[in-house]
Amino acid sequence: MALKLYGLPMSTCTTRAMACLHEKGVDFELVPVQLFGGEHKHPPFLAKNPFGQVPVLEDGDLTLFESRAITSYVAEKFKETGTDLVRHGNLKEAALVKVWMEVESHHFNGAISPIVHEYLVAPLLGKTPDQAVIDAASEKLGKVLDVYESKLSSTKYLAGDFFSLADLHHHAYTFYLMRTPWASMVNDRPNVKAWWEDISSRPATKKVAEGMTFGEKK
Amino acid sequence: MALKLYGLPMSTCTTRAMACLHEKGVDFELVPVQLFGGEHKHPPFLAKNPFGQVPVLEDGDLTLFESRAITSYVAEKFKETGTDLVRHGNLKEAALVKVWMEVESHHFNGAISPIVHEYLVAPLLGKTPDQAVIDAASEKLGKVLDVYESKLSSTKYLAGDFFSLADLHHHAYTFYLMRTPWASMVNDRPNVKAWWEDISSRPATKKVAEGMTFGEKK
Ligand SMILES: N[C@@H](CCC(=O)N[C@@H](CS)C(=O)NCC(=O)O)C(=O)O
Ligand SMILES: N[C@@H](CCC(=O)N[C@@H](CS)C(=O)NCC(=O)O)C(=O)O
Repeated sequence: MALKLYGLPMSTCTTRAMACLHEKGVDFELVPVQLFGGEHKHPPFLAKNPFGQVPVLEDGDLTLFESRAITSYVAEKFKETGTDLVRHGNLKEAALVKVWMEVESHHFNGAISPIVHEYLVAPLLGKTPDQAVIDAASEKLGKVLDVYESKLSSTKYLAGDFFSLADLHHHAYTFYLMRTPWASMVNDRPNVKAWWEDISSRPATKKVAEGMTFGEKK
Repeated sequence: MALKLYGLPMSTCTTRAMACLHEKGVDFELVPVQLFGGEHKHPPFLAKNPFGQVPVLEDGDLTLFESRAITSYVAEKFKETGTDLVRHGNLKEAALVKVWMEVESHHFNGAISPIVHEYLVAPLLGKTPDQAVIDAASEKLGKVLDVYESKLSSTKYLAGDFFSLADLHHHAYTFYLMRTPWASMVNDRPNVKAWWEDISSRPATKKVAEGMTFGEKK
């Protein structure tokens, strides 16, 4: 039975899980959830994820939520196929993957997401972007990217000279950032730029990018 | 050679790592870092963690930062000793541990930490707690704890009927919350309260609690 992924192809968190499934070459069915209609806040969906958010993965009788828990599960369950995203069997490299996954969660995500939400998502909801929020977030993001710029001068990817979940988790928000005036934050840092060009030109990330339509030029 | 953990016994993130080391019965040396003196923002420490934060773990030539990456590494490396914190060899249970570790990171931590920082830490830095920040955070925390209350009505711990890293990661901030007027947010929810009493009375968490002195009644 194929895996079921509940979400939307334009949602950052959904594409985080999708990119991982593509890297592993795992078949799945994408089940759309009507976020704009509020479907995720009603009992049938809340039974899958009590926080009322996408993505949710169903694998037989196992229901998982939180995009990064889903990618970790997929990377582990399908360890024999596709890209090794968590450095199986190498305790030290696996630990460094975890470090940089945590950096994405605790430093990068909170800095980049307000920029994308204010600039690309708020207008769709009829709101004006809050410049003060964007300014504070871009200052934080700059500091995080300075650390990345330095790290990526000594290794090709964040956790070492191998692509891993740590890199993959960055794709979704960076993809959308590149459609805002703050794309310069990546383009002005040569190592970050080269890393971004590398990870965004993988078949798996190119495939999810097709559905990422927020901020698309009409 | 014993592991070296850089940090401070009163720091929430340091005790997250310490509690895990105690659960595993692993020897380590705690190397104090003078946060109040700014030692963590100078080159020798930045070489260990470019984000200039504690904790940092050194295990021989391996240097790790981010408390939750450290606990995951310790749980994996010492899988044969102490409490099984990540459900080795049970893919489904291990996945549920990851889900609730992510919930702690992405829902709980951001809601509880401003309360603790404003109420217990700000005064030590000569600042007045910002009530608006506390109000917003406690509203968010209430919603998260409502989900926990419901989850803990069907399982003894967050990921299932077993103690895991998902529970352990909650100890540090909840411990300090219990020293604020917002302790009622735990005490008013019977399942959350029972869970808290359980996880805070484990030998490992009792041991770290001895050093957690913010907000201590003199
Ligand atoms: N930490 C969660 C965040 C999930 C999340 O924020 N999902 C968004 C879509 S990208 C959503 O469902 N938003 C609707 C809502 O929060 O009400 C994860 O990584 O899965
Ligand atoms: N996400 C990091 C957070 C680390 C953190 O915030 N550490 C605090 C002490 S609890 C610190 O070093 N603060 C000093 C600073 O950020 O300048 C982790 O979990 O390790």
